[in-house]
Amino acid sequence: MDPSGGITVEVRVELKPGVADAEALAIEKSLTLLGVNGLRGVRTVRVYRLTFGSSDPDEALRQARLAVDRLLANPVIHQVEIRAVGSPSARTSRAV
Amino acid sequence: MDPSGGITVEVRVELKPGVADAEALAIEKSLTLLGVNGLRGVRTVRVYRLTFGSSDPDEALRQARLAVDRLLANPVIHQVEIRAVGSPSARTSRAV
Repeated sequence: MDPSGGITVEVRVELKPGVADAEALAIEKSLTLLGVNGLRGVRTVRVYRLTFGSSDPDEALRQARLAVDRLLANPVIHQVEIRAVGSPSARTSRAV
Repeated sequence: MDPSGGITVEVRVELKPGVADAEALAIEKSLTLLGVNGLRGVRTVRVYRLTFGSSDPDEALRQARLAVDRLLANPVIHQVEIRAVGSPSARTSRAV
């Protein structure tokens, strides 16, 4: 729970293995040119922290899954992890 | 360590509290319009997973900090967390 009694859910969206991550490739190239040594690969991940007014973690996770289905991820290319954070009984749900 | 002996470092970049997160505001508005109930706030976070060939976690963390300083974050607006993942002695370094 956050200080005001709400629940924060972290939605972690990343590309499935095998899906080209163009941004990550550009970053990898740049970092090598900028003098970062030993880099062998880069992947990018988007995390959305959704705060809900509800104090029911199950309801917050249900709404977060709705957010993923309707906007935050594309099941064809993304794998998603949904996790209640800062709530007493943080639990994880993973969809690949 | 990853299966081939390298080390993966996760760099988590988010806006400092008080810095407007325009993308998050747009997402919050859209999600509410799309029927997600009870949403009180959204924040976005960028995570970069950097894999290094080195098997020395300290060296990997040092290179990751270099990557942050040179490209991945702007200290004026971002707070950064750097964490070795999947290595036996994962350790965290936080810069606010």
